[in-house]
Amino acid sequence: MNLILLEPADWIDASHARVCDPRRLTHLREVHRAAPGDSLTVGALDGAIGRGELLTLTASEALFHVPALDREPPAPLPVHLLLALPRPRMLARSLEHIAALGVKQLTLLHTRRVEKSYWQSPELRPDKIHQHLMLGLEQARDTRLPEVTLETRFKPFVEDRLPALLAGRRGLIAHPGMPQACPRGIDEPTLLAIGPEGGFVDYEVTRFEEAGCEGVHLGERILRVETAVTALLARLF
Amino acid sequence: MNLILLEPADWIDASHARVCDPRRLTHLREVHRAAPGDSLTVGALDGAIGRGELLTLTASEALFHVPALDREPPAPLPVHLLLALPRPRMLARSLEHIAALGVKQLTLLHTRRVEKSYWQSPELRPDKIHQHLMLGLEQARDTRLPEVTLETRFKPFVEDRLPALLAGRRGLIAHPGMPQACPRGIDEPTLLAIGPEGGFVDYEVTRFEEAGCEGVHLGERILRVETAVTALLARLF
Repeated sequence: MNLILLEPADWIDASHARVCDPRRLTHLREVHRAAPGDSLTVGALDGAIGRGELLTLTASEALFHVPALDREPPAPLPVHLLLALPRPRMLARSLEHIAALGVKQLTLLHTRRVEKSYWQSPELRPDKIHQHLMLGLEQARDTRLPEVTLETRFKPFVEDRLPALLAGRRGLIAHPGMPQACPRGIDEPTLLAIGPEGGFVDYEVTRFEEAGCEGVHLGERILRVETAVTALLARLF
Repeated sequence: MNLILLEPADWIDASHARVCDPRRLTHLREVHRAAPGDSLTVGALDGAIGRGELLTLTASEALFHVPALDREPPAPLPVHLLLALPRPRMLARSLEHIAALGVKQLTLLHTRRVEKSYWQSPELRPDKIHQHLMLGLEQARDTRLPEVTLETRFKPFVEDRLPALLAGRRGLIAHPGMPQACPRGIDEPTLLAIGPEGGFVDYEVTRFEEAGCEGVHLGERILRVETAVTALLARLF
């Protein structure tokens, strides 16, 4: 927690905020070893960053004086990430990486090799997704929450929504065996599609290519989804 | 497990091997849904890759006929990775990422902000390290086991061993706030140093710089060690 990220409910007035949840209180005590008078980095959800003075710290709340938030959060990545829904434990970690790396639009997509049961996982509940994204933002000192969209049917997504997402964006589909190596250091608006464990099936790759996406690969190593997400984003941007 | 990685003890003769451990047997049954007659990708530890035919699969063993191993494993990364010892759970995952990405030399180093207790973790036992590296190799279809060295004292390492590691290698120390952005797409032999959670202390950064290392950063986001390792390797090579 490199930033104390204050949600609307945490604010008492324009310059005071209160943290009451056990996770952050424990972190303040045990990792930060915070004490009244300490100055800590704080941010407003979807807003700016600044310093907050810890006024009191008890077992049930930490009270901060936040005179001003005057720094912008880090720049977002210019990418809309389209990720085949990973299995639940991998999803949880991937959400943290994705938020920490600065992705602001994420679509979780059903594909042939996504197990249907994954869509019933409690990890997909809005509060769980929110929690993992918050952890990633706190890690990276960011404040802007990514938007997450769930697309449970491949064909309607590709036919009805993909064309609009590709308007003004370069489309890339990461898939082993594609002819082109993943480009480096681009800064244009991009849609990046990443398949599930086991990959996209040929039909899905073809549909992305027909929609205008370029197939790219990361070499002959097959990476886990969470490793591939980080590796692709770090290489692209 | 995209490759069945056969250790010396798994071989019965030059063209037959047997897998007896529960982890791999379960994976063959439940994930691969393998049956006698199936052809699977196999590799010899530190050797070549080929196809093996599953002859029998029982509750206690899988017997393979491996007529020939005729493909080289993927190329290694030209990097010696010097990693401040992460906390145990992070270490386990980092070892898998590191092996999957193709690092072949890894030094785990003590620095000021590494908790001394981490050096007593069971995750540092040679069999545990071996197990995590094997998982990474199986994932990436690689066979060459990384060499892992433990350096429990910073000063003797920097004074006595670092100069030899830097002979013929470009030295990079990844640290937030350094003036130079991490380079992209290099292919020269490299030593890459990555600090612990909380970072290197100034004294340590100075010692690396004095030894000839360039300080590089990955932007203003602070990443978890496992995310930073993958991001730096994917961007550099």
